[in-house]
Amino acid sequence: MQKAVKLGLGVALATVFATAAFAQVKPDTAIQYRQGIFKAQLWNVLPMAAMVQGKAPYDQAAFLLRAQRLDQLSKMAWDGFGPGTNAGAPTKARPEVWSNGAGFKQAADAFQAETPKLVAAAQTGNMDQIKSAFGAVTKSCDNCHDNFRSK
Amino acid sequence: MQKAVKLGLGVALATVFATAAFAQVKPDTAIQYRQGIFKAQLWNVLPMAAMVQGKAPYDQAAFLLRAQRLDQLSKMAWDGFGPGTNAGAPTKARPEVWSNGAGFKQAADAFQAETPKLVAAAQTGNMDQIKSAFGAVTKSCDNCHDNFRSK
Repeated sequence: MQKAVKLGLGVALATVFATAAFAQVKPDTAIQYRQGIFKAQLWNVLPMAAMVQGKAPYDQAAFLLRAQRLDQLSKMAWDGFGPGTNAGAPTKARPEVWSNGAGFKQAADAFQAETPKLVAAAQTGNMDQIKSAFGAVTKSCDNCHDNFRSK
Repeated sequence: MQKAVKLGLGVALATVFATAAFAQVKPDTAIQYRQGIFKAQLWNVLPMAAMVQGKAPYDQAAFLLRAQRLDQLSKMAWDGFGPGTNAGAPTKARPEVWSNGAGFKQAADAFQAETPKLVAAAQTGNMDQIKSAFGAVTKSCDNCHDNFRSK
């Protein structure tokens, strides 16, 4: 497997790992990772919002794809909030993420509980159901932002 | 659904959409989106690399989770390379992404063809199979980087 190391990944490995263990990943890497996931979530939320608001034509397949991707992404950011990742690259994460870990997890779990419902609603193609489920998703986004993200 | 708009999303919507249609998304947003996905891919590749290289203890469940997430992410970056997203925020994407769209798609497809094989290998827990599949994944990463990404 030396080949895998020698390639582009080799540089990345040297950059990221302080030692060989993943636990020692640099805070910057974790911060940029989780921000990347949140950006990707928003990327998928926006076209859904446009359809829900009637600003873009409703496309059932496109909406469903966005909902499925959001659901997949909804599970990913959280391992980027490990101990020691509260500072480094610029971050809007508030200290409460770490000082109130149980509350943060509860907010994260609430979000993850809503995205499968949005997928289910998107599968029906029923706009009333979609609007309701989408509203619940964005409410869970905002609930977490209000309590754990700086303005 | 005005509620969804009024919240954090309202600002984002105003920022991102030049008009209501998603096609008019700002190049910067697309560039940052796709970079976020690539960072997230690397985030998942690194702990797998450490395990494959014997630098971290092999953990079948952890490896499988990383493989599954990589597989999900492998499908996502490509809609961030739309027309007009070749410049804006700093990007290492080479002009060939757009001038050789067929070649870029082929490289992207090749990568996406390998990640499910890695998931399948990860499910077996057989390190020989995992090493082989992981090597094929990283080779497909590097193939695309060599041809479509600036150093």
